[in-house]
Amino acid sequence: MIKIYEGGLRPEDIFDRSEEKNTVGDIVADIIANVRKNGDAALREYSAKFDGAQLDSLEVTAQEIEDAFSSLEPEFVSVIEEAADNIREFHRHQVKTGFVITPRDGVVLGQRVIPLERVGLYVPGGTASYPSSVLMNCIPAKLAGCDEIVMVTPPSKDGSIKPAILVAAKIAGVDRIFKVGGAQAVAALAYSTETIPQVDKIVGPGNVFVAEAKRQVFGKVAIDMIAGPSEILVIADGTCNPKYVAADMLSQAEHDKNASAVLVTDSLELAKAVSAELEVQIPQLSRAEIARVSVDNNGKIIVVDDLNKAVEMSNTIAPEHLEVCVDRPFDLLPQIRNAGSVFLGKNCPEALGDYFAGPNHTLPTSGTARFSSPLSVDDFIKRSSFISYSQSALEGVYEKIDAFAQKEGLQAHGKSVTVRFED
Amino acid sequence: MIKIYEGGLRPEDIFDRSEEKNTVGDIVADIIANVRKNGDAALREYSAKFDGAQLDSLEVTAQEIEDAFSSLEPEFVSVIEEAADNIREFHRHQVKTGFVITPRDGVVLGQRVIPLERVGLYVPGGTASYPSSVLMNCIPAKLAGCDEIVMVTPPSKDGSIKPAILVAAKIAGVDRIFKVGGAQAVAALAYSTETIPQVDKIVGPGNVFVAEAKRQVFGKVAIDMIAGPSEILVIADGTCNPKYVAADMLSQAEHDKNASAVLVTDSLELAKAVSAELEVQIPQLSRAEIARVSVDNNGKIIVVDDLNKAVEMSNTIAPEHLEVCVDRPFDLLPQIRNAGSVFLGKNCPEALGDYFAGPNHTLPTSGTARFSSPLSVDDFIKRSSFISYSQSALEGVYEKIDAFAQKEGLQAHGKSVTVRFED
Repeated sequence: MIKIYEGGLRPEDIFDRSEEKNTVGDIVADIIANVRKNGDAALREYSAKFDGAQLDSLEVTAQEIEDAFSSLEPEFVSVIEEAADNIREFHRHQVKTGFVITPRDGVVLGQRVIPLERVGLYVPGGTASYPSSVLMNCIPAKLAGCDEIVMVTPPSKDGSIKPAILVAAKIAGVDRIFKVGGAQAVAALAYSTETIPQVDKIVGPGNVFVAEAKRQVFGKVAIDMIAGPSEILVIADGTCNPKYVAADMLSQAEHDKNASAVLVTDSLELAKAVSAELEVQIPQLSRAEIARVSVDNNGKIIVVDDLNKAVEMSNTIAPEHLEVCVDRPFDLLPQIRNAGSVFLGKNCPEALGDYFAGPNHTLPTSGTARFSSPLSVDDFIKRSSFISYSQSALEGVYEKIDAFAQKEGLQAHGKSVTVRFED
Repeated sequence: MIKIYEGGLRPEDIFDRSEEKNTVGDIVADIIANVRKNGDAALREYSAKFDGAQLDSLEVTAQEIEDAFSSLEPEFVSVIEEAADNIREFHRHQVKTGFVITPRDGVVLGQRVIPLERVGLYVPGGTASYPSSVLMNCIPAKLAGCDEIVMVTPPSKDGSIKPAILVAAKIAGVDRIFKVGGAQAVAALAYSTETIPQVDKIVGPGNVFVAEAKRQVFGKVAIDMIAGPSEILVIADGTCNPKYVAADMLSQAEHDKNASAVLVTDSLELAKAVSAELEVQIPQLSRAEIARVSVDNNGKIIVVDDLNKAVEMSNTIAPEHLEVCVDRPFDLLPQIRNAGSVFLGKNCPEALGDYFAGPNHTLPTSGTARFSSPLSVDDFIKRSSFISYSQSALEGVYEKIDAFAQKEGLQAHGKSVTVRFED
């Protein structure tokens, strides 16, 4: 049963975000060392051991992709295509160009925007199969202009990859796909093997071994965020349908026993109705057991005085997903400061954004929306600045640069400008 | 004596970028724990111990800032002002707005750009005093629109802060300044004390204790990069003046014994002349001892067949600073893919960018220019996306969302849309 807190709650008590200690560090370090030393042989060894698969070829062939299209329901292929279009349409507005300015005669300054050369995309396998994750991670990289997008995903026992994953990869524009998962896949992308090329950045969700491997290779390559348990915060007023609110909360709670679903409302009546509705809906879920634990351990309903207080609380919590289930949600938007993605109004269940609407579903968790952003095209570019001064432009300012260098005690810095005007 | 490599060199041998093991982790963890527990009292205790300073007030007063302006040479105040203007002029082109799109009737999607609320700026003290660092870190945060910029810097024994630092802080727009340095300052910014407020992000350079503290509080707050030793790579053709090239290399070598200065040239004659010139100039430097070690251990001159090969090598190395000392440097710019900041032509010593020209001097080191960017306004904002669907817009797509949810095995996700159309 979900707990109801009247009169609010200390924000720090809302989510227990203490990190779990994990003991996978050493195992992962061994796997990475083995892949660095033995390359493809190590990958095949781990595939046999962890996936139960004996692989002929590590790389997915064009034929396999064609077969995937044949075996998937055409209606679902269309759904993937439409989702991909929506994601492309949203993310293309994130594409940025550099700039060049000429603030004074003889001075040219600029900033270039350069795509990362090669990006690695991790896609989980096993029981879960997330084609949406393929779209959300690949499309921004493609729009950024990356030369090559390499996907890795663990194979089934028979060496196959789920059709929906292959179809999504093809539609999103993945260039090469390798049948390898786990920490070994991350190691291969970071250090390369005979078959798998080194990438500049690794993105995509994974289990604790994958997350730990990303942590360990960070610095050698870039990584996206390491996501914590998923979170939803619903702000709802007394006019909301408790059935909808409960369903939205459960769409988060079914993810993971550590997931959090929180309702903040100004209506005690709604609070009670949602609590009752949760009890009705949980037993109907296929993942009821997970949702039960999530709701009982991490679920909360917080009753506050008014909607402004609700927004304040949300800003302090900085949720990954925020639903604003009120009649005029745009009125509250300017006050919302910390939230990964905001779902406005009563017709915007979070699932709409998870799959279809267009904005990215890879979002900052654990309160990091205070300072982090959803995955975007920006994550697949880097900036580089440049400076050009003519000789006379430098002559006009070199003594000032020397003065700065002397003040900072870096004489050779000064010398590098004065030497040009000594003769 | 610098080493000359004819016929190129394997890129991986160019910089020894193996990370030094440090043993400061435990010390820093203790300091952080102590600050979290004892707050200001811990800060005063460390100030007495590490800075030798007994502080009345932790916060710098308006009077102290006024006194700093009186005691600094007016000419140097002007130089700081002019540098700040240049930095502002460049960085204001980085300021971005969000977007709103309405791809279909009833659908509104958007991305908001929201400044971080409070930013902490670490400024080193001791023998070094870097007003340029104050400008380079504060001005982008100010342009991003952060509510409050809090600076921390260790005091001298008499409890004072160097005038140039206070003047630069005032000109750059720092809001509050606290006399505290080291790991304890980072801890205070991450967890707050009675006097020092918690920030969302900590930026700025520091010694190994500061860097380790930033590493340890990362996640609780955001941090900028942890910078490695400074690097310069100079591409120069046979028409260059070896005196200038040597002086530019030494402006990097004087920073730190671990700093690297590398010349890549298509002229063996220039290679030899620069080598000789380094030997002439090193003994003349006030930091000759540091430059000597840097040049002997990390300095390299690499002779390649042509300038295209030089650019290729530079792209593999991905240097922090890249000077392109040739007559038509803009011709090579499009080929340059991995470099923090590029100095184009023979009149652009790196010191010009360190202090004055406008682009940021906080740059990716250790080859991370492959995937990282200079510090910018982007580092002080976060993005947040939003989605609004009308009821009929949702009705048009809800079955597709349900199909996606079923395919991913997340039934409650599907339920959150179908429930809205059951009645």
